[in-house]
Amino acid sequence: MSDMLDRLAAMLESRKSADPQSSYVAKLYAKGMDGILKKVGEEAAETIIAAKDGDREKIIYETADLWFHTLVMLAHAGLGPEDVLNELARREGLSGLAEKAARSKD
Amino acid sequence: MSDMLDRLAAMLESRKSADPQSSYVAKLYAKGMDGILKKVGEEAAETIIAAKDGDREKIIYETADLWFHTLVMLAHAGLGPEDVLNELARREGLSGLAEKAARSKD
Amino acid sequence: MSDMLDRLAAMLESRKSADPQSSYVAKLYAKGMDGILKKVGEEAAETIIAAKDGDREKIIYETADLWFHTLVMLAHAGLGPEDVLNELARREGLSGLAEKAARSKD
Amino acid sequence: MSDMLDRLAAMLESRKSADPQSSYVAKLYAKGMDGILKKVGEEAAETIIAAKDGDREKIIYETADLWFHTLVMLAHAGLGPEDVLNELARREGLSGLAEKAARSKD
Repeated sequence: MSDMLDRLAAMLESRKSADPQSSYVAKLYAKGMDGILKKVGEEAAETIIAAKDGDREKIIYETADLWFHTLVMLAHAGLGPEDVLNELARREGLSGLAEKAARSKD
Repeated sequence: MSDMLDRLAAMLESRKSADPQSSYVAKLYAKGMDGILKKVGEEAAETIIAAKDGDREKIIYETADLWFHTLVMLAHAGLGPEDVLNELARREGLSGLAEKAARSKD
Repeated sequence: MSDMLDRLAAMLESRKSADPQSSYVAKLYAKGMDGILKKVGEEAAETIIAAKDGDREKIIYETADLWFHTLVMLAHAGLGPEDVLNELARREGLSGLAEKAARSKD
Repeated sequence: MSDMLDRLAAMLESRKSADPQSSYVAKLYAKGMDGILKKVGEEAAETIIAAKDGDREKIIYETADLWFHTLVMLAHAGLGPEDVLNELARREGLSGLAEKAARSKD
């Protein structure tokens, strides 16, 4: 499961040269950043609705939709999930902790 | 980088029993689901604003904020990033592809 | 122009008993509160996008969409624009000021 | 109640030249469009949360917050509620009906 986001990012990259008619993602790219961001807003709303319902299946489904569309946004901006994960690691100081843990195994 | 989300999820889990005054996350849990979801909506708006600006640093920063607060929401609902990643894998059929790739190495 | 919101509210009320196939609003009611709120989230995102573009026509258009869908939400909850306007008046103390201004004309 | 939005717009206009420390609205203007839009996103999320709870008082309160911050956004863009109400009237064809009604009184 660990590199699922990397594989998704590679798929999203490959869709950039695809025919807009060939897939949902290619169609989304063709709408440009505004079309992608409209979906980010919509999926954020649906995630909030699902969380208010407390329905686990719906929360998972809508959060997956939200993350997916933020990945499309990142790809369209020439960025990827590793940029976001690096930022999260930087904040938490987890990079440093992980490095220290790795060293302690030496 | 690969298991960054798992480490974040473990950190978020550990904060559940912490004093609300001791950390940002503990404070957020104390506000309950509504307080968490309000932040999800706010960070979605900031992600959209950053993407409209086309500012790479801001896009990374705000998307990290958005993902982080969805992780807090998942933790509060008794869920974790693996649930969302499994759902994304299921959709893309990437689990199957990965399994096939793993087998072909045998 | 003054009572435009009242007239819209009356129109929205009349659509409650209409065939879901007969109009956009009747169709929206049939989707229930979740369907209406999904649109509120989507239109909020489009309003933000339009404001970032600084395009006056688009700002007007998208804000109209946002207000319209909040009016549908209010109607579905048995509320109307006067409830929201009364709350805004209460906050600003403008009701009192207006009353005072009216009296000073006597 | 009818011209509440006009009075609010006039108040928002007057705050443009005010000291940022003097009022909430003056402070919001000082943050610029991004600060205003962040609030629009946050209030949209809170409106959705309130509607999911079905709590009438909260729905009124949060919708008032949402409308208020869209009015601040409009003012910052050199627009006002009449622009949005005119657009809503145009869509519904209510302008025409109102004009006809006014004439029939002659």
